[in-house]
Amino acid sequence: MMKDAIILLSGGMDSGVLLAWARPRYERVHAISFDYGSKHAAKELAMAAALAREYDATFTKVGLPFMNELFSSSLLTSGEEIPDGPYREDSISSTVVPFRNGIMLSIAVGLAENLHVQEVLIASHSGDHPIYPDCRKEFTQAMSLAATLGTFARVSVEAPFAGFDKRAIARVGREAGLDFTMTWSCYKGLNLHCGTCATCIERKQALEHENGLDPTRYTA
Amino acid sequence: MMKDAIILLSGGMDSGVLLAWARPRYERVHAISFDYGSKHAAKELAMAAALAREYDATFTKVGLPFMNELFSSSLLTSGEEIPDGPYREDSISSTVVPFRNGIMLSIAVGLAENLHVQEVLIASHSGDHPIYPDCRKEFTQAMSLAATLGTFARVSVEAPFAGFDKRAIARVGREAGLDFTMTWSCYKGLNLHCGTCATCIERKQALEHENGLDPTRYTA
Repeated sequence: MMKDAIILLSGGMDSGVLLAWARPRYERVHAISFDYGSKHAAKELAMAAALAREYDATFTKVGLPFMNELFSSSLLTSGEEIPDGPYREDSISSTVVPFRNGIMLSIAVGLAENLHVQEVLIASHSGDHPIYPDCRKEFTQAMSLAATLGTFARVSVEAPFAGFDKRAIARVGREAGLDFTMTWSCYKGLNLHCGTCATCIERKQALEHENGLDPTRYTA
Repeated sequence: MMKDAIILLSGGMDSGVLLAWARPRYERVHAISFDYGSKHAAKELAMAAALAREYDATFTKVGLPFMNELFSSSLLTSGEEIPDGPYREDSISSTVVPFRNGIMLSIAVGLAENLHVQEVLIASHSGDHPIYPDCRKEFTQAMSLAATLGTFARVSVEAPFAGFDKRAIARVGREAGLDFTMTWSCYKGLNLHCGTCATCIERKQALEHENGLDPTRYTA
């Protein structure tokens, strides 16, 4: 018998691919999205809701208003401007939201316990590691142990893409038939992807923009 | 040089004692309280705010409205009635809030990272273990590892009372001079402690009600 899963679905490219990859592998899929006051929340959350519908997953949106009030990050509406240019330790560190994955995973584990679901999936991948500590494989494994020990259902946290870079994730998405225009990456949250912020640059590389394989419309 | 700490302060007896115990051991203390829609939230949170003032700690209240909406528990205003009588697996399991400590600790770790504080303290103790999986020492240790791996500040989670039962905690509070009438235990959240729910029964035993050492006023 196939199991059920809860998926952390931001509406970005990585979690969109995770949903498309996971759908045939699980009986029921529950998507959980978080509104933590990021500048691109409206775009991302609309994509997440549409993706959940497309892949016949239940959709739960969790509001976390405290993040915008308490935490400092340029990713948040309360923070400074999003820097332009590729990911570098000094520029992108302003976009770190403290322990964001830890907080989102914990809430997803609580929902899993409540629904008697035993697996929580997150789209962490190897390309994230150097910058965000809570994207590393060792972190996800420690969270999984905490989840298993801290629940009656012995919930585990799985990161199926932990060994993949973003280009490999894009290939998985293509094989699964994912329409990438249903995913949102840009941190700025304007009408189109800006094409110049760090996450847009990564998206272009992963989707092989230079080879004409990227269906995304960019401003620049 | 003394370090700073963040304390999970519910306003209950255990975390009140933790605050009184920790205050002389840390330079600055930040208390964090959560409003997750429990029936006794108003009483507990008022006690927490007063305790923070009394012990010269900053006080941050974090609203978690999603818990009441998504989770089933008799502890929540959306749930069934609180059962009477002592803790037993079958009766008290209705009061479990899924992965509550995991969720609260993760948010406290995020706040620690944001404030560059390296220790998060929780008042988990040995009397809690059999019923609530997320109160066990092994769980706290796994969360601590996840916190350390998932933050730049390498935050740790400490449970100084992990080896204590509730009566030992009461003794620590007496030695620290804590006024126990500034703490709230009863799950029902009426004007006085009911004296008959599981947590009131535990409080009476811990504070040696039978020996006249308990300053609490109970309805019964």
